[in-house]
Amino acid sequence: MSKRVRVGLLGLGTVGSGVVRIVNRNADLIESRVGASLEVVRAAVRDPLKDRGVAFSADILTTDPHEVVRDPEVDVVVELMGGTDPARQLVLEAIAEGKHVVTANKALLAEHGAEICQAAERRGVSLGIEASVAGGIPVIKTLRESLAANRIVSVYGIINGTSNYILTKMSQEDRLFGDILREAQDAGYAESDPSFDIGGIDAAHKLSILVHLAFGVRVELADIYIEGISDVSPVDIEFGRELGYTLKPLAIAKSSNDEIEIRVHPTFVPDDSPIAQVGGVYNAIQIVGDAVGDLMLQGKGAGEMPTASAVVSDIIDVSRDIASVGSGSRFSGPSRSDNTAGRIKPIEAITSLYYLRFMVDDKPGVLSQISGSLGQNNISIGSVIQKGRKEGGSVPLVIMTHTAMEQDIRRALQEIGLLSCVAREAVLIRVESESD
Amino acid sequence: MSKRVRVGLLGLGTVGSGVVRIVNRNADLIESRVGASLEVVRAAVRDPLKDRGVAFSADILTTDPHEVVRDPEVDVVVELMGGTDPARQLVLEAIAEGKHVVTANKALLAEHGAEICQAAERRGVSLGIEASVAGGIPVIKTLRESLAANRIVSVYGIINGTSNYILTKMSQEDRLFGDILREAQDAGYAESDPSFDIGGIDAAHKLSILVHLAFGVRVELADIYIEGISDVSPVDIEFGRELGYTLKPLAIAKSSNDEIEIRVHPTFVPDDSPIAQVGGVYNAIQIVGDAVGDLMLQGKGAGEMPTASAVVSDIIDVSRDIASVGSGSRFSGPSRSDNTAGRIKPIEAITSLYYLRFMVDDKPGVLSQISGSLGQNNISIGSVIQKGRKEGGSVPLVIMTHTAMEQDIRRALQEIGLLSCVAREAVLIRVESESD
Repeated sequence: MSKRVRVGLLGLGTVGSGVVRIVNRNADLIESRVGASLEVVRAAVRDPLKDRGVAFSADILTTDPHEVVRDPEVDVVVELMGGTDPARQLVLEAIAEGKHVVTANKALLAEHGAEICQAAERRGVSLGIEASVAGGIPVIKTLRESLAANRIVSVYGIINGTSNYILTKMSQEDRLFGDILREAQDAGYAESDPSFDIGGIDAAHKLSILVHLAFGVRVELADIYIEGISDVSPVDIEFGRELGYTLKPLAIAKSSNDEIEIRVHPTFVPDDSPIAQVGGVYNAIQIVGDAVGDLMLQGKGAGEMPTASAVVSDIIDVSRDIASVGSGSRFSGPSRSDNTAGRIKPIEAITSLYYLRFMVDDKPGVLSQISGSLGQNNISIGSVIQKGRKEGGSVPLVIMTHTAMEQDIRRALQEIGLLSCVAREAVLIRVESESD
Repeated sequence: MSKRVRVGLLGLGTVGSGVVRIVNRNADLIESRVGASLEVVRAAVRDPLKDRGVAFSADILTTDPHEVVRDPEVDVVVELMGGTDPARQLVLEAIAEGKHVVTANKALLAEHGAEICQAAERRGVSLGIEASVAGGIPVIKTLRESLAANRIVSVYGIINGTSNYILTKMSQEDRLFGDILREAQDAGYAESDPSFDIGGIDAAHKLSILVHLAFGVRVELADIYIEGISDVSPVDIEFGRELGYTLKPLAIAKSSNDEIEIRVHPTFVPDDSPIAQVGGVYNAIQIVGDAVGDLMLQGKGAGEMPTASAVVSDIIDVSRDIASVGSGSRFSGPSRSDNTAGRIKPIEAITSLYYLRFMVDDKPGVLSQISGSLGQNNISIGSVIQKGRKEGGSVPLVIMTHTAMEQDIRRALQEIGLLSCVAREAVLIRVESESD
């Protein structure tokens, strides 16, 4: 009486191997839970001879992904190739063939999500995307199903493990960004081309998926304010620590008055906040809903088995549908139509606390000039650190503001940049705090 | 084209009012997400004249819960009465009438869950139970769906907010259990009869539900080792702090070699563990799966709106089924048959680190006698704190063990209790640590 659910894989790299491993290892368990057995019947790979460290029959392999997509034996196509081409074409083709699709591809969803969701909805097939954000952490299902009764107020968190690993190490060991990055690459925690991770693009892709689910709004990468972590200096991490803050690579989306602010940047969070404790390659997402209050999900955001766990849970969700009553588009999107459009708030219009570091001449009157300029721009000061004496040289002046508007901060920094006592451009790090 | 989903409430207290509030407030949002509109069409209450602070038409009220259950206009019955009688009878009756059921009633599920699940499965209706454990935190859906690919290794956490509030306050303010309890009652954080909460019964009810979902095993309350928090002394919290541990009211279930250990007791956790940071009335559940690794969910475990958020998400899940293709029993249980039975490990057979406090005579040779007895029982010592000088009186001797077996600890404590240098029964607090 148990139904077979036949899976075709596009890609059999790290995550693909993990999927095969889980399906092999937990077959009995999954069948007893779902009432259906999962079977990987086809897999498209570039190199059929490569050892993948898992057991499967060699005759499921093909080098032509179209064979997987068109195979009438395949019920669910799992896309694990990454990148947008040819993934987009293959996913659309699979949908057109009436296959359910599961994908871990955040770039694809960020850039072509609307097209793919609509195609799946029109064709009446399911689209599982849990693995596209934060690996094994069920943030997609939580937003889409568990919090469906909530108006979402904000979603923010650490959704790039590489950046978190680097900032955590920089904080713990007081070392430079470049050193840690090289180490992370050697240890396999950072890719050989790490630009998407450390530049914030990877987090922005994931954030755009979360924003769609949370607020029903489709955003382009260009709508997101993005700052990477490569310019972070240990000295600012150290000053932050003195003020009671930890530096984290945050992706932030907040809604207020029908406007949404969406940004990715290194951010100071209070040392005693839950997100400050999330170190190493861990991810964590905090969601605030109008009914549920604040909820935090934390776990492994990447890696073979955590990501495969999410992929297989999506396959299982599809299987439940297949095992019960046929297809249904329960995955296709957060809302029937994406017309709850909110306006994107420009970065200049956000409010935040700000950490500012100026390099100034060590002479009388400097603090008064700078604080005067801040005051004239409606910025009030929370704390100041000024130390170090360097005859004739410049010293750091650190200011933590109270809540201020970004455009006021920018105007003030421009004015202050013109002062003769200021040696170079100020460092600006935004601060997330309960009280802002 | 949008379908109406008609909800009947059994009980319109705190959570019930929250459900009405959400359905009123977020109606448009829910309809756009689900493609169905929710409507509360009937509600059974004890006192129809009571002001409930939310807007609804008075003619939906009845004092007879059977009217709700039998009303042909009702699609989903939401049971929010608490207790096992008459809740059990009403829920079974609703199922027999072909209604989907959503319940927040952990006592009912812990004691009659098997019967209710089977009835729902047989009748082909859905049973939503998200609100029964940890309020708005989606632990049920995460275990049942998101981690369906995982063999669960352990589930543990803080699932009683009242106990966590009291232990947090005791830790922060170095005050006695009784004082804090009275304060909590005055502030509404503890019930006037707090025995289920502080005695660990409430947590055990919830843990039995989690164990069923995680391990496919039905357990009785008698299978669970339960210790409440009422005997906790500030002095042990203080010694724990010295050793780097925080005291938390944990519910713990772990599987190994087909045996499951299930226990509820105050527990020391390392200060730097995520669970140690979870204070006040917050709940947090850590789940370890063989693929996903460790995952933590944290949020508000009780209260009107968080619990109502979970109830409405269950109603929405049911609605999605109704809106698409009719009923399906996707909620009925973790597995088709509960035959993955594991044996329950008796408390004597568990291993743990142990915090032990003895009150001993302050004279030479005492430490050697006690450590000798521990050593003879295969217990090795991690740390010792002995301080305070009290001529002729007794002083505390605190020992933190390395991993030991509970039965060895018990045998040792019995032996040590017979020593003339030991003034009274030892205090034993189990310790959860990554390294045990």
